[in-house]
Amino acid sequence: MLAFEEIKQISIASPSKIVMLVIDGLGGLPDPDTGRTELETAYTPNLDYLAKSGVCGLMDPVSPGITPGSGTSHLALFGYDPLRFTIGRGVLEALGIGFELEKTDIAARGNFCTVDSAGIIIDRRAGRITTDKCTELCELLGQVKLPEIELFVLPVKEHRFLFVMRGEGLSAEIRDTDPQRTGVAPNEALAAGPKAMRTANIVNEFVEKAKEILARHRPANMVLLRGFSRLPEIPSMGEIYKLKPAAIAYYPMYKGLARLVGMKVYDAKNGIEEEMKILAEHYSEHDFFYIHVKESDSAGEDGDFVRKVKAIERVDAVIPQLLGLKPEVILVTGDHSTPALLKGHSWHSVPILLYSKWCRPDKAMEFSEATCAAGGLGRLRGVDVMLLAMANALKLTKYGA
Amino acid sequence: MLAFEEIKQISIASPSKIVMLVIDGLGGLPDPDTGRTELETAYTPNLDYLAKSGVCGLMDPVSPGITPGSGTSHLALFGYDPLRFTIGRGVLEALGIGFELEKTDIAARGNFCTVDSAGIIIDRRAGRITTDKCTELCELLGQVKLPEIELFVLPVKEHRFLFVMRGEGLSAEIRDTDPQRTGVAPNEALAAGPKAMRTANIVNEFVEKAKEILARHRPANMVLLRGFSRLPEIPSMGEIYKLKPAAIAYYPMYKGLARLVGMKVYDAKNGIEEEMKILAEHYSEHDFFYIHVKESDSAGEDGDFVRKVKAIERVDAVIPQLLGLKPEVILVTGDHSTPALLKGHSWHSVPILLYSKWCRPDKAMEFSEATCAAGGLGRLRGVDVMLLAMANALKLTKYGA
Repeated sequence: MLAFEEIKQISIASPSKIVMLVIDGLGGLPDPDTGRTELETAYTPNLDYLAKSGVCGLMDPVSPGITPGSGTSHLALFGYDPLRFTIGRGVLEALGIGFELEKTDIAARGNFCTVDSAGIIIDRRAGRITTDKCTELCELLGQVKLPEIELFVLPVKEHRFLFVMRGEGLSAEIRDTDPQRTGVAPNEALAAGPKAMRTANIVNEFVEKAKEILARHRPANMVLLRGFSRLPEIPSMGEIYKLKPAAIAYYPMYKGLARLVGMKVYDAKNGIEEEMKILAEHYSEHDFFYIHVKESDSAGEDGDFVRKVKAIERVDAVIPQLLGLKPEVILVTGDHSTPALLKGHSWHSVPILLYSKWCRPDKAMEFSEATCAAGGLGRLRGVDVMLLAMANALKLTKYGA
Repeated sequence: MLAFEEIKQISIASPSKIVMLVIDGLGGLPDPDTGRTELETAYTPNLDYLAKSGVCGLMDPVSPGITPGSGTSHLALFGYDPLRFTIGRGVLEALGIGFELEKTDIAARGNFCTVDSAGIIIDRRAGRITTDKCTELCELLGQVKLPEIELFVLPVKEHRFLFVMRGEGLSAEIRDTDPQRTGVAPNEALAAGPKAMRTANIVNEFVEKAKEILARHRPANMVLLRGFSRLPEIPSMGEIYKLKPAAIAYYPMYKGLARLVGMKVYDAKNGIEEEMKILAEHYSEHDFFYIHVKESDSAGEDGDFVRKVKAIERVDAVIPQLLGLKPEVILVTGDHSTPALLKGHSWHSVPILLYSKWCRPDKAMEFSEATCAAGGLGRLRGVDVMLLAMANALKLTKYGA
């Protein structure tokens, strides 16, 4: 793919508008009884209209066979090579709970765990304590004071928490204290290089104090930390594409990611109908809109085929409103597949449709995995999607002489 | 593509089994009379069943337009980027005759050639002497002794032989003595850097002595050497994918390549039926099987359309046995195309089919170039194939956060 410096040279600001509608976990697998996937089962006359008038394809968020995390696949859709821009687990947890990391903060994913009297881990999740219990323990740990730095310990869910160090000269080059298995003691935090020595000491001091505090809170009598990371240095979509981008989403992680790449974020808690309302309200202020739909993925993760079908139909119902705004480019896809049959993210390529005046329509007559497989976009990578959208909005000039 | 370090982090050992059936030279070109390729002409009800139940596509072993050598394309199928891991011509000759190279050996491809009285090359292949004659001359040259190193000179076929130096401190950074044209004298072996000076001297001494010995053996009165190389440093498939891989093959080069990437090699001289028997016998010992079928390629190289059709039908006949073992993933493809019309390897993309419980079937109703072109796998590169097989065997976890 082109380097950002090259994209900057060919991208031009223009009034044309792009709407990227990400139906999370869109791709599926066929129901064994009907032979039809969730998308193929859903009644989607409006998406079918877009597919018929537009061009379809199948998209690999990272590359064939790879099941991506949501952060990774969204970065790809926004045009950031996911093999180059990686998001640490700690940063992702921070984005996920809407904690606003500063550039020099170091974040880690924490687990409350259970150790025996010899300090050996016997349960990496402390019996999945309740989120209330987690919140209570995080408050206790949040009182730990260490010289010259500020610490944050914040509950995420059940046994999971976020650990953040804020201060000068901190490094993320710290090896996990979480050995990711039972039957051994937690690792000491080790510095991967000399510059990280002080940070490693801070982590070890924190863990020592946490151990003392938690001693009488069995099963949650110890902590494990992993994925020490800081915000990636990432150019904004404004810089790269000369766009004024906006995100309309509800879940913290997607909003956090959008903020990371320089989008203005609009909060919509009541689903796609509210998202459409926000889109209409702020339509004149931006030229790129990322709209995130979560329900399809949640249903897939729960293995609920029917609920995923309904989530897709709910999106279909608002397409006329979207068309009413007459954006130059409408792009509908998912960040990855979440087949209800697999109850989780999968590696399967994701249906994508692109609707624009300049898109060269193919023979696809409906929006489905099957028609996308024979679509005019062929098979493309997640990282190619932004440039395709930009091109169809006539926002890219010639590359090379 | 993902780096091996990243693949290691997401690959998991599991009992599920993958069978990769490589029908050498599978892809073809249509017979001008019937308009059907070799694969489309063959009666293949069982491969068609796999295609119908599975998902198809077209695969470029290296990249579009590139005609790969067999070593190169097999490395790609095993997941090794062929642009990064190159196999020297000398090493390939060694693999091809089953010579077991040690890590520090330097191998070169040798030609017996004819020079005139002034030492000018007049025939680079010495009139293609017989393999018997080649064997006799190799025995003579094998008697050359040089201090502190061991030499091997072994016949390959006709004018071709293998030259190997074994000893300490040898370098492969030696320029070819074979100028690859007539009308000039053979080149001296030149060291590409200071560390290769001693090796270059050894080569020149050997060539000098060979010239003396061969003086009275015209037309084979001189040798040409090229492709000085050593075994590439290559992580094993066990390390990268946590697999216990096996190869079932007959031809030395494929067995050598398989050994190079850490497969246990089973020898099958009597075709695909014997290969299936070996597969069944050792089925419980491995979780990945590479099965190689050579006849299809040989027939293509000979321009024998009908024999290539029959070779494919012979494979088709054993598919029920393969299905009887119930592997989680069956992958059928070729290492490259060998259209009978072209009598050689070609750049044409290769039909591929993947059959697994989780593969998301497409509309392909038979295994053919035409149906693969519209298949759900789209067009992929050789190096993507392993990860796709691993994913469908549920042997890969999530990439990225």
